[in-house]
Amino acid sequence: MIVLITDFGLEGPYIGQMTGRLYAKAAGIPVINLFADVPSFNIKAASYLIAAYSKEFPENTVFLCVVDPGVGSDKYFPVVVEANGKYFVGPGDLLFSVVKANNKKNYKQYKIGWQPSQLSNTFHGRDLYAPVAVWLALGEREKACLEVVDSQVEPYAPLDLFELIYIDKYGNAMTGISRDVQSLGQKLLIKGRIFKKMHTFSNAVPGSGFFYLNSNGLVEIAVNQGNAAQLYDLEVGDAVSWVN
Amino acid sequence: MIVLITDFGLEGPYIGQMTGRLYAKAAGIPVINLFADVPSFNIKAASYLIAAYSKEFPENTVFLCVVDPGVGSDKYFPVVVEANGKYFVGPGDLLFSVVKANNKKNYKQYKIGWQPSQLSNTFHGRDLYAPVAVWLALGEREKACLEVVDSQVEPYAPLDLFELIYIDKYGNAMTGISRDVQSLGQKLLIKGRIFKKMHTFSNAVPGSGFFYLNSNGLVEIAVNQGNAAQLYDLEVGDAVSWVN
Amino acid sequence: MIVLITDFGLEGPYIGQMTGRLYAKAAGIPVINLFADVPSFNIKAASYLIAAYSKEFPENTVFLCVVDPGVGSDKYFPVVVEANGKYFVGPGDLLFSVVKANNKKNYKQYKIGWQPSQLSNTFHGRDLYAPVAVWLALGEREKACLEVVDSQVEPYAPLDLFELIYIDKYGNAMTGISRDVQSLGQKLLIKGRIFKKMHTFSNAVPGSGFFYLNSNGLVEIAVNQGNAAQLYDLEVGDAVSWVN
Repeated sequence: MIVLITDFGLEGPYIGQMTGRLYAKAAGIPVINLFADVPSFNIKAASYLIAAYSKEFPENTVFLCVVDPGVGSDKYFPVVVEANGKYFVGPGDLLFSVVKANNKKNYKQYKIGWQPSQLSNTFHGRDLYAPVAVWLALGEREKACLEVVDSQVEPYAPLDLFELIYIDKYGNAMTGISRDVQSLGQKLLIKGRIFKKMHTFSNAVPGSGFFYLNSNGLVEIAVNQGNAAQLYDLEVGDAVSWVN
Repeated sequence: MIVLITDFGLEGPYIGQMTGRLYAKAAGIPVINLFADVPSFNIKAASYLIAAYSKEFPENTVFLCVVDPGVGSDKYFPVVVEANGKYFVGPGDLLFSVVKANNKKNYKQYKIGWQPSQLSNTFHGRDLYAPVAVWLALGEREKACLEVVDSQVEPYAPLDLFELIYIDKYGNAMTGISRDVQSLGQKLLIKGRIFKKMHTFSNAVPGSGFFYLNSNGLVEIAVNQGNAAQLYDLEVGDAVSWVN
Repeated sequence: MIVLITDFGLEGPYIGQMTGRLYAKAAGIPVINLFADVPSFNIKAASYLIAAYSKEFPENTVFLCVVDPGVGSDKYFPVVVEANGKYFVGPGDLLFSVVKANNKKNYKQYKIGWQPSQLSNTFHGRDLYAPVAVWLALGEREKACLEVVDSQVEPYAPLDLFELIYIDKYGNAMTGISRDVQSLGQKLLIKGRIFKKMHTFSNAVPGSGFFYLNSNGLVEIAVNQGNAAQLYDLEVGDAVSWVN
């Protein structure tokens, strides 16, 4: 199974073109378009999303991740990270730093040595990463010319990121705080507002805000039958903190 | 074939996560994302859409339907409805009441006895309904621990719903009126305006509104080369009626 | 592999319904939703997009293309174009005129003789073109009752179209100019503004506009880390020209 995590957007041909390249090498290989709307130019948020949302997929899943790093993209190089029996393919090891931190003794990182005969300047997802993802999914990794390489950048720390990393279509605002329900604080502060913990949506008065542990283990701010992001003017990157 | 009908939206990971659970149990099983934008908190509209849009799919299709019922969700329980050789899986039998009414002597309803070892509070589509849908598609229904159960709620009646149930991206406004072309009225009233019947778009003057029988047998209000919903301020839930 | 190029939009059931018809005839056949947002009522732009974006797909790919032609749709008839080892199915030969012009000695055009027993007025993509696409993909073209037919309309000329044909979600604006990088002009004029050529995004100052050859060989106007369409008020159909 190949899982796509990108900032390509749903409109336009880009997801289809990348999937086409996958099918051209392995017609009908299972492909899932998990995220097409990871925040652009925000490798930090993307790295926490990739770590949280890859957990539920089975071993041997290949995550094909392409997010525009914005300024300074020249310092990144194509990598494969193998962690916990899964593969992560994409531009630069920083994107997978949370995955690596979560699997400290159980990951390997490789530089991709293979280069396509035709490599566009702007669509490495299609030209470079898609073929590598197929080879990994088919067990033909030798074709990708992988060489073990150490991390070249300082990984993000600590494991919890006290920022908003994604806002979904309901206006629910995910943080990078990944916890067991037992170790959660009772109150979360964001933009001067305090939110209390609820077990789930139906425990909250309709229209009122709260936080809860979402179905992927991330602390998330929500409003029962309402749009938290609009109501409280929340944006990716906003800081959050526990309060007493 | 498994067909998804949800209010999850296209953005974000939810459709991908549910598909991932399907593929984890049956890699590459055909999955179609039919509706990701059924109106939320509107089980009535959803039940008419499910009935109208499931008809064209072949026998043995499994419809995996998840729509947030809003207030009072505690009275629903996980069901499978078997009607006309097709399966409908989802939260609560009210969601399938129009399907059942359309197949009065030819349906069975089951309570899902199986429970996953890990059931999140907020994502039963992934944790509970997706595995059941796969088992039904694979002919392994015994794994879902189905028990025949009577309807627990009063089904919607009559068979025609004189309301708008969906507005598509063109601004075409579908009603819950499902008819043969012979039994259609000549004029439809909505929000004080009267629309005349046309056979198809090209019969109408560009820019003018009309109603017609859409390709799924629902009465639909449209504008030739225009946006009916914007032009006439139409919303899901608006009442319609025949006039002389 | 069947590739969908339509103006159906991502919302609503239409892509799913057409895919359902494909799967009903060939469960699990690889289907790619390449474009769901080709400009409506703009066969000219669509014909250039189809030509540019079909190139990268392998032989035997079937392109199922449905775009509303708007006024005068009565003069079109269902066709299959076979060009360069690929198939193009859709309403009217004008839609494929750029494909044909690009493959002058290497294409055949057929009228589709087959008609479904149930043909809706408004959804030929599902009822007529989808079954034909499956037959072509499965090598059962005799079922489509194809008859060789000459072009019935004057094809678009010249091969380069000096107009905007698509604006993507980043605000990048594609033209219909398809060139080798060597034969590009140095300056492009649009709406009174002049854009200079860049090799790729990172060569441009953030926030400044430029043009480049995109990964499908089309001249495209973009802004590094910005939205060209919003910044310069660009729309599909705007004229462009080379300047000295």
